[in-house]
Amino acid sequence: MKFKAIVLDIDGTITHKDRRLNLRAAEALHALDIPVVLATGNISCYAMAAAKLIGLGGYVIAENGGLVLTGYDKLPLVSNHIEECEKAFTFLSKHYNLTKLDPEYRKTEIALSRDFDLEKAREILKSQDFEVDIIDTKYAIHIKSNEINKSTGLKNIAKLMGLNPADFVAVGDSVNDAEMIRSAGFGIAVANGDAEAKNAADHVTKASYGDGAVEAIEYLRSKGCI
Amino acid sequence: MKFKAIVLDIDGTITHKDRRLNLRAAEALHALDIPVVLATGNISCYAMAAAKLIGLGGYVIAENGGLVLTGYDKLPLVSNHIEECEKAFTFLSKHYNLTKLDPEYRKTEIALSRDFDLEKAREILKSQDFEVDIIDTKYAIHIKSNEINKSTGLKNIAKLMGLNPADFVAVGDSVNDAEMIRSAGFGIAVANGDAEAKNAADHVTKASYGDGAVEAIEYLRSKGCI
Repeated sequence: MKFKAIVLDIDGTITHKDRRLNLRAAEALHALDIPVVLATGNISCYAMAAAKLIGLGGYVIAENGGLVLTGYDKLPLVSNHIEECEKAFTFLSKHYNLTKLDPEYRKTEIALSRDFDLEKAREILKSQDFEVDIIDTKYAIHIKSNEINKSTGLKNIAKLMGLNPADFVAVGDSVNDAEMIRSAGFGIAVANGDAEAKNAADHVTKASYGDGAVEAIEYLRSKGCI
Repeated sequence: MKFKAIVLDIDGTITHKDRRLNLRAAEALHALDIPVVLATGNISCYAMAAAKLIGLGGYVIAENGGLVLTGYDKLPLVSNHIEECEKAFTFLSKHYNLTKLDPEYRKTEIALSRDFDLEKAREILKSQDFEVDIIDTKYAIHIKSNEINKSTGLKNIAKLMGLNPADFVAVGDSVNDAEMIRSAGFGIAVANGDAEAKNAADHVTKASYGDGAVEAIEYLRSKGCI
């Protein structure tokens, strides 16, 4: 079947390992004639800058689904779960010296430096009833609402675009991409992806990082899916 | 002579006309073995995203010199001129219906949609004694302190890097690049540059936009300047 749009994670999926944009992937994405959505755990202005620099339409899922944008001059759709995340952060801060990343820019979740024991932190949070998940995207540890993920972000942006998640191909590499990969019409994990992303995927590329995204696009074209 | 660093404008200088990153320019900048500073009228998180995606060291001059950063985890050096800009904005708003761009992100100046008569606005401001300049970068109209420009930004970042402006090559295309091009050790304007930028430059490339930046780097290498 033909898919109507594609959504891709940024870091680790269309970049090199060092987060530098894979220029072949940038070229391939710009050449697509279907809408390209960038989905990231990063903040919206990073995602919008990436979309602008790659030459895409400004369709963005940021903050692990908490915020979506459908164009450069559009207002974002922002979830209101930051308070729950702040409560969990305040509680965890009694046990760890935590460093927030981009606090002034992040509107729906909290990102932290990866300098504390995630498993122990999860144990500590289990004793409480905060409605949050704490996840490691390999670039940051995120305290996020357990009602929000890239899949809910995909549902929201699909609706704004007059599409359904099933109309999308999703490509990612990380635990925070798994729900999105599962809820899309077709899900692809790049070879460097973690187990959660690969298990959720319909197809796993041979190539890693941005070369994997290029391979994914070539694969979809060869199957007549885009 | 050998220059120790290079500073380049982003939009119109290392991009295509549509602001999409020129991938050849991205490749050439990443391959340089001297520090590369990105200097833009845009906000710092756009500039930092561009530096990250190109694979540079996170040296950034943002907001037309109002804000400089010397790394991804560093705190910005921020000028305190926003109040003067706000006064001028409030005064101009009596005459025009002005639309601010990125107001929540912009810390030192005001950027406006290019939908009003700049010359008339300048005339109106002349009657007042606001210490601001109002400039058109072709992407936005900026109300900025007349004490701040990319050249003062270059002085500030050079100092933080243990260098002098004379140690830099500067490359740009626009009126807001002219002072920086003039104050650097060697200044280059790309072919699409406006008169102010070209007049300030020691060398003007034959190629336009990002291809001009690639030509500039090849030129500097051929002369043994980098």
